Amino acid sequence: MRVEVVAVGTELLLGQIADTNSQWLGEQLAANGIACHFHQHVGDNHDRIVLAFRTALARSDAVIVCGGLGPTQDDITREAIAEIMNVPLERNEELVEAIRAMFNSRGRQMPQNNLLQADVPRGATIIPQRRGTAPGLICPVGQKVIYAAPGVPYELTEMFERAILPDLKARTGESSVITSRVLRTWGASESGLAEALAERFTELTDDSRVTIAFLASGIEGIKVRVTARGQDAVHAEELLAAEERVVRSILTKAYGDIIFGVDDETMEFAIAQRLIDQGLTLGVAESLTGGLVASRLVDVVGASMWFRGGIVSYASEVKFDLLGLEPGPVVSADAAEEMALGVRRALKSDVGLAITGVAGPDRQDGHEPGTVFVGWALGNETGSSQLRLPGDRPRVRAYSTISALDVLRRVLDGQR
Amino acid sequence: MRVEVVAVGTELLLGQIADTNSQWLGEQLAANGIACHFHQHVGDNHDRIVLAFRTALARSDAVIVCGGLGPTQDDITREAIAEIMNVPLERNEELVEAIRAMFNSRGRQMPQNNLLQADVPRGATIIPQRRGTAPGLICPVGQKVIYAAPGVPYELTEMFERAILPDLKARTGESSVITSRVLRTWGASESGLAEALAERFTELTDDSRVTIAFLASGIEGIKVRVTARGQDAVHAEELLAAEERVVRSILTKAYGDIIFGVDDETMEFAIAQRLIDQGLTLGVAESLTGGLVASRLVDVVGASMWFRGGIVSYASEVKFDLLGLEPGPVVSADAAEEMALGVRRALKSDVGLAITGVAGPDRQDGHEPGTVFVGWALGNETGSSQLRLPGDRPRVRAYSTISALDVLRRVLDGQR
Repeated sequence: MRVEVVAVGTELLLGQIADTNSQWLGEQLAANGIACHFHQHVGDNHDRIVLAFRTALARSDAVIVCGGLGPTQDDITREAIAEIMNVPLERNEELVEAIRAMFNSRGRQMPQNNLLQADVPRGATIIPQRRGTAPGLICPVGQKVIYAAPGVPYELTEMFERAILPDLKARTGESSVITSRVLRTWGASESGLAEALAERFTELTDDSRVTIAFLASGIEGIKVRVTARGQDAVHAEELLAAEERVVRSILTKAYGDIIFGVDDETMEFAIAQRLIDQGLTLGVAESLTGGLVASRLVDVVGASMWFRGGIVSYASEVKFDLLGLEPGPVVSADAAEEMALGVRRALKSDVGLAITGVAGPDRQDGHEPGTVFVGWALGNETGSSQLRLPGDRPRVRAYSTISALDVLRRVLDGQR
Repeated sequence: MRVEVVAVGTELLLGQIADTNSQWLGEQLAANGIACHFHQHVGDNHDRIVLAFRTALARSDAVIVCGGLGPTQDDITREAIAEIMNVPLERNEELVEAIRAMFNSRGRQMPQNNLLQADVPRGATIIPQRRGTAPGLICPVGQKVIYAAPGVPYELTEMFERAILPDLKARTGESSVITSRVLRTWGASESGLAEALAERFTELTDDSRVTIAFLASGIEGIKVRVTARGQDAVHAEELLAAEERVVRSILTKAYGDIIFGVDDETMEFAIAQRLIDQGLTLGVAESLTGGLVASRLVDVVGASMWFRGGIVSYASEVKFDLLGLEPGPVVSADAAEEMALGVRRALKSDVGLAITGVAGPDRQDGHEPGTVFVGWALGNETGSSQLRLPGDRPRVRAYSTISALDVLRRVLDGQR
């Protein structure tokens, strides 16, 4: 079963919006072991949409179309599919009522245009909407199929998971259950992780029902995705758990405690968990990061339980006045520790975290851009780590932020 | 002249990276008046790349291929083009020397694999590299053409502007010069701007050589792009300047001072300019934004000239202790003004800016999530603005950040 994704919308061709749908669908199809060999973008033009669909059907078994299902004259995906199927569009009265009910529930009158969304190519199956007004469609074309889904990402993702993926799996005759988990790491390079896992990769044959893949995630470290295919959900989960133990053991042996979370768990979530478990509050002092560390911590729902606040001591005098540093160089290990003690005192928190360094483009206190010190204070202990970070000013600041949070994570785990 | 973009790379189909190249090329082609009707993604597979190229050549006059020009076995764009052209690949000795020189200049030995990058389909023209090792190619196919460029964005963009765009323009016989400017607005909706400009849109015919378009930019306001096509650079700039005056006048009449910058100028850049002009320093106090405002100000190179720092007073006690608020409700216009005065005092800055509000999900001090107060202090004056912002916690925080900066921009412009 080969699937092709066709994203419809002139705004994609003009570069006015990014096509995140094709990327998301690609990831989902890959995670479910379904081959996807081509993506296309096409504008809101009837003949060209028809051409794109014919092209896709010629080289793939199933086509997922995103977009062009709205209520305006520009939204012509329905007509194009009807032409491909060589059938008329028919207005579906149940859909008319469903769309009218959706508007009523929001206290609005349904514009007449929205009736167009109730038009269905004869022979197509409707995928009911749960989040918007445009229904999805499952349209058979000979032995092949076109799925039409809205271009709005949160409508598309829900419809894909609920209706399109199960239908695709039924067509492939695939009855196994696929499950996966992402291990989020910080502190090792992708090539380093690949080297550590190289032997394990060679041990994993098609029979082992388990795969390992790396996902790029910008500066947020490297994600390792483990996927297992079982006869049922219990079996898949058993396979996944066993493989996760193997991968964790290999990575820990090679690089120590580099896995900070799983799936959607962020570094700041890892910090929050530890502070809540240990009943501690936190204050942060920031220089070059200028509030990035504090703002990530505030991202966590319920941060007020453990986050006191921060001091952005950008000017040196603020470090002297508010954090109690002795006048002198402000980019050093000693300064970072003094800042951590100072912010803990000023904000009356249990833990103090501080970042000072050189974001660039100029040198400061004799240090090159990219030189960063992270200081901490907890109980009677203080400490600091020196980092040497690559890149330009925004990258140095972004790397500093996650690095500082990782230092704190390790300190809270007793790695002092 | 119809152009199609084909992005090559299995990682695009697997969703491991986002295809920013097609979006960027789409925007560039549109800005230069060149039609682009389709984009494709295809993986690193010879037969499928050939099929994607044939598909593109059948429905377009020119194809821009990004990616697959690297030095590994996966990089097979050159072979695929040679097959389409029905010619052999020939090793180009000048390219061999250029690639070797590139490695030498970085103090590294050239791996043998990189010799593959010197292979050129017979009859193709080389586009020399300036930023990496993979040369680009201009490959005639009958009356049509395939351009091959690297997938690394900063290599692609340079090569497109220097060689591909001029070649495309030469083929279209287009000798006019196109220039454009983006006006960045905050405070009006896209439909509101469209309504204000509706009459102007109808006045602009093909003869007027000027177009206006809206660019989506997430929460950073709406961008209005004005594009002019002149007989030469001077003529294009004259047309552009005249149309910019018309657009500015219409928008200012309808919505007041909503244009905060042009092209790449950010809101924080607008703040920096005003503070430098007026010789003022700034300190910020943040509650729900948690450091986002400070971190954006630090983004500006040279921020140390005018930015003193910030206090992230997330816990109410920090507002009382460090900012001198009277214990009581902390989400109010009075609290915002007190915070602005408090941070100005604590950081010894000339201007104080403060943000307090409810990010959600819970209500606070009797206010719904999305209720935000921005306070300011400058000279003997203080003031505040109340905002009602939509969305979930991250969106409320992001909208609060740019809204607060816009309030400060207007205050610095004397709109108190």
